[in-house]
Amino acid sequence: MSDTHELGTHITLAHGNGGANMRALIDTLFARYLRNPLLDTRADAACIPDPQAELIVTCDGFTVQPLEFPGGDIGTLAIHGTINDLAVAGAIPGYLTLTAILEEGLETALLERVIKNMSLTARENNVAVITGDTKVVRRGEGSGIYLVTTGFGSRCPGQRLGIEQIQVGDSLLVSGPVGDHGIAVLLAREQFGLSGDVSSDAASVLALTQALSEYTGLRFMRDPTRGGLATVCHDISLATGLGVRLNEGAIPVAAAVRSVCDMLGYDPLFLACEGRVVAVIAAAQAEAALRHWQELPQGQQAAIIGTVTTDRHRVILETTLGGERLLPALEDDPLPRIC
Amino acid sequence: MSDTHELGTHITLAHGNGGANMRALIDTLFARYLRNPLLDTRADAACIPDPQAELIVTCDGFTVQPLEFPGGDIGTLAIHGTINDLAVAGAIPGYLTLTAILEEGLETALLERVIKNMSLTARENNVAVITGDTKVVRRGEGSGIYLVTTGFGSRCPGQRLGIEQIQVGDSLLVSGPVGDHGIAVLLAREQFGLSGDVSSDAASVLALTQALSEYTGLRFMRDPTRGGLATVCHDISLATGLGVRLNEGAIPVAAAVRSVCDMLGYDPLFLACEGRVVAVIAAAQAEAALRHWQELPQGQQAAIIGTVTTDRHRVILETTLGGERLLPALEDDPLPRIC
Repeated sequence: MSDTHELGTHITLAHGNGGANMRALIDTLFARYLRNPLLDTRADAACIPDPQAELIVTCDGFTVQPLEFPGGDIGTLAIHGTINDLAVAGAIPGYLTLTAILEEGLETALLERVIKNMSLTARENNVAVITGDTKVVRRGEGSGIYLVTTGFGSRCPGQRLGIEQIQVGDSLLVSGPVGDHGIAVLLAREQFGLSGDVSSDAASVLALTQALSEYTGLRFMRDPTRGGLATVCHDISLATGLGVRLNEGAIPVAAAVRSVCDMLGYDPLFLACEGRVVAVIAAAQAEAALRHWQELPQGQQAAIIGTVTTDRHRVILETTLGGERLLPALEDDPLPRIC
Repeated sequence: MSDTHELGTHITLAHGNGGANMRALIDTLFARYLRNPLLDTRADAACIPDPQAELIVTCDGFTVQPLEFPGGDIGTLAIHGTINDLAVAGAIPGYLTLTAILEEGLETALLERVIKNMSLTARENNVAVITGDTKVVRRGEGSGIYLVTTGFGSRCPGQRLGIEQIQVGDSLLVSGPVGDHGIAVLLAREQFGLSGDVSSDAASVLALTQALSEYTGLRFMRDPTRGGLATVCHDISLATGLGVRLNEGAIPVAAAVRSVCDMLGYDPLFLACEGRVVAVIAAAQAEAALRHWQELPQGQQAAIIGTVTTDRHRVILETTLGGERLLPALEDDPLPRIC
């Protein structure tokens, strides 16, 4: 049973005006599903109780199209994406804030599905939405739903991760196949008339990041979202002045992802993942860390995929054919609005 | 001298793709102006050092049209609005996160003005932007710039404010004239062919909220933004089950605001302010608090405007003509996209 009939079937500008209609939207959808002891929708602010000595903060905007796709929707993506940015920073996610920019004319039923899924995902992952804001923009000035989340977590004691910790000789690991999210969203757009059995990999990576928390040689982790694995390598190279050498044959790519990429001319190394981790770790600990990941359901296809080199500012791919090629920095956008 | 020529004159989808163009956008605009010791644009997360025992958090979306108006722009509005939500919660603002959703085709020069003004406003108000995110949406799926900020501040010790603290007999104060922001934005749209000498009141209210921090009878403060003063009164009435009685003659309204309202049929009590505070305080302390406010440059036109009554769920306006009328809850939107 839904109480959303009070709202009407579509969002109107009055749902964003601060008055009675906005109150109804907040009460019957946002507060109803996202209810928790810290969320007080009568207040414009919330209190984080007893913050740890070091609180890690991240923020993310989500503008994915379409709003729903195999393996997730814009709401679950927002929760997972925010959790993951905290997890790869070596933190345990705790709280989120949520701002929704809705477009006039949005179907209330679609919004309800998104909020409901978001609430399930938040609960599964032990995070609570503690304050929020809603704006409604005119028809044609949005595309249904944009979400912006800020996440807070407590840094795991003793863990000092940072891109500047990376050293020559370190190994690169990836926790699973790359590009699934990008291809799942692409196929959901149906603009290419293709269909396929690819689901987004969107998921929390917290179990993966926590699995490595005891490794003293762990330098840096990142979730390869926009720009994909190749862009994480370029970010490393740019920040450290070092190079990265990737072993193409070692990089896991699902067969279905590879065949769509071959057909359309995409490179899976540049496509977004939403549930994978790239970790840089001292070479001596790489094999142990890999086994640790492979024991987890999320890490069964994890692999050691490359090393950090002295090749100043170069990302080099050793191809399966035995050659090597320079991986360029991403310039044009292969797939806009992927997250 | 500007380095923004690297970016081109307009924002493209590639400025949001996670690659080299996005890096250029972040480095030459966001990081250049918003630089501070905690902002590391190579990371997706930031650390809040030594948080106080109670950290107050707020989030806000900004979709104002036009992006620039007399007295501010979407960037300064975002900073002021976030500071103000923290200030009225009894906190000292410290840090912000910033997410920008940009529309393909946005003029880079306009974006630069907005970011520059934002950086000046942040500095003036001792707040630092510590992490951010940028997304670019296709032409026609935004309206130039949407900003979303999350703000953090430390709660002033000993201050326990909350709408549930309000008691029958308490006085309502407002710190200055109402409706200036709403009318300034309205005139900037030029859709009515009117022009006028009204500037937005957008400003930090921290000095005003801090001025009342010693008053033990202070119950609740709010900045009357969307929905205006009348909506704050309705929120009070709804949350407490009590009534509010306003004295129309005591409510400060600038002459220019009143005349535009008269011409177009708006009620200034429902129009947004972005630099005013409504405070509810024990009647015995109201006069002293008022004098305290009036000593501040921001509070010269402050006034005691009403009282909390036992009139269950009713907001009543005692008119200047000696009658009284029920102020309805805001239903339709008098002015969409005001903040």
